[in-house]
Amino acid sequence: MPLFHGLSAFPLTPTDMDGRVDTDSLRRILDRLVAAEVHSVGLLGSTGGYAYLDRAERRRAVEAAAGHLAGRVPLVVGVGALRTDAAMALAQDARAAGADGLLLAPVSYTPLTEDEVFVHVRAVAEAGGLPLCLYNNPSTTHFIFTTELIARLAALDEIVAIKMPLPAGRTIADEIVELRGRVPDGFAIGYSGDWGCAEALLEGADAWFSVLGGLFPRTSMRIVAAARDGDAATVHEIDARLGSTWDLFRQHGSLRVVYAMARMLDLTKAEPPRPILPLPTEEEPRIRAAMAEIDELEGKAKSAIGE
Amino acid sequence: MPLFHGLSAFPLTPTDMDGRVDTDSLRRILDRLVAAEVHSVGLLGSTGGYAYLDRAERRRAVEAAAGHLAGRVPLVVGVGALRTDAAMALAQDARAAGADGLLLAPVSYTPLTEDEVFVHVRAVAEAGGLPLCLYNNPSTTHFIFTTELIARLAALDEIVAIKMPLPAGRTIADEIVELRGRVPDGFAIGYSGDWGCAEALLEGADAWFSVLGGLFPRTSMRIVAAARDGDAATVHEIDARLGSTWDLFRQHGSLRVVYAMARMLDLTKAEPPRPILPLPTEEEPRIRAAMAEIDELEGKAKSAIGE
Repeated sequence: MPLFHGLSAFPLTPTDMDGRVDTDSLRRILDRLVAAEVHSVGLLGSTGGYAYLDRAERRRAVEAAAGHLAGRVPLVVGVGALRTDAAMALAQDARAAGADGLLLAPVSYTPLTEDEVFVHVRAVAEAGGLPLCLYNNPSTTHFIFTTELIARLAALDEIVAIKMPLPAGRTIADEIVELRGRVPDGFAIGYSGDWGCAEALLEGADAWFSVLGGLFPRTSMRIVAAARDGDAATVHEIDARLGSTWDLFRQHGSLRVVYAMARMLDLTKAEPPRPILPLPTEEEPRIRAAMAEIDELEGKAKSAIGE
Repeated sequence: MPLFHGLSAFPLTPTDMDGRVDTDSLRRILDRLVAAEVHSVGLLGSTGGYAYLDRAERRRAVEAAAGHLAGRVPLVVGVGALRTDAAMALAQDARAAGADGLLLAPVSYTPLTEDEVFVHVRAVAEAGGLPLCLYNNPSTTHFIFTTELIARLAALDEIVAIKMPLPAGRTIADEIVELRGRVPDGFAIGYSGDWGCAEALLEGADAWFSVLGGLFPRTSMRIVAAARDGDAATVHEIDARLGSTWDLFRQHGSLRVVYAMARMLDLTKAEPPRPILPLPTEEEPRIRAAMAEIDELEGKAKSAIGE
């Protein structure tokens, strides 16, 4: 599977309250992804809390992950930062620490122009010297990529993929057709926003950049496999059974929910980086119910892959 | 004048390309503010690029400013950061370095809930132990304060003011009336968005948090003085003559424009922190024309204050 295709699983990055990465917990979470044979690990994505970690801790996380994965699964690393020089340094760090690819979101404080984002992304891509996926995530970066800008960036050698948010105001199918007409052959178009990604895969998206996949990779892989086989019925069946998880993701933000789930699974004791607060205990029954549904799907996923 | 009332002048923070503060240039810019007797200096606001500076450089900027102002003008310092512990440390640094008050924006990556912002702001206010102004700036923080949340926060001892963006969908007058009904007596309500602030002052706002004031404090002070005197004609006349500056601010973002102006005034050679790019040279004639208009106003401002 080429990089940035198939299931890219985005784990959280467990830390203590001071923002120091708990590499033991991280390795436990990565073990699940290796066992499920996800197509790539998306370390230090939004779910991985990259924006809340300093350079030294981000480097520690990449080193721990690269060492533990040891080439068994390709490692993609988020290198977004407010300053261009900081993002360039992070890209160089990620490469030196063993990343196979980079993910770059144009995070902003002062709203950025298209030209500013173009120059920024080009500088970081060149500094990193690895295949790079654009990270189009307006809900966190507050920058909206136009198709024009995507086309300009996709013409650069290093930039080989884009992680898109679910579209508003047009269908995923229409969006993919428009984008395919503007990017080179082989440029990967993938989606995030887990609740819409089953549909995106059925519509021909190359990748699912998945928060669920960072914690429950077997179920996520089943969706990807069924979509590849054109088995829409199975995709829809699994997707429907994840409905209560998607409801929680939409209501609370997927990051808060996967932290609660990871704690309930005893994978980590970590809480989200403050100011983000853990979900209130009142939500635990809903989360447990959603996880029970996933457990059952995971059991089926195990037997589907012959374990 | 009580803190967070009158003209709070927000200078840029000149740095080299690596984000190291040029304290000589900063002092030159502060000299203009001292000479015009602004009511406070708002160091490390959005215009001051706080989001792009690391902790050590922010501390250096505060130390340089506090040392140079030497009590002649109150010093307010922006202490926003993505992490709560980082913002708390910045608040303690600012106090230790001589700040008189703090300004706190709930900057976000993962969108924050009201409770998260409440807990975050309370923790930073307590850590700082100085009068604190809420910084309500959705265009950069992507968080929208409800009146309810402002009221909750205004009940805390340290929180004595708010810096509001220009309202959409209601008048400034209506907004001030609603807010006054929900905050303690003496709580200061001020505005940013320079092109609407003359009107805000005439409508009874307590403060103008001014980008223009960080570079052209005399003209800004004339507006504030005229508004205090109820001299709407003078306010409107000056405001109208600043129209081409306001157009530039709205089109390019005030930060990019004041960098260009400061360079033309030979106050600094600094450029905005990348990825933010300097304005293209094609815009120089427009900027020069706007500055010529301000120059003439500044001359009048000088004679108005008897120089």
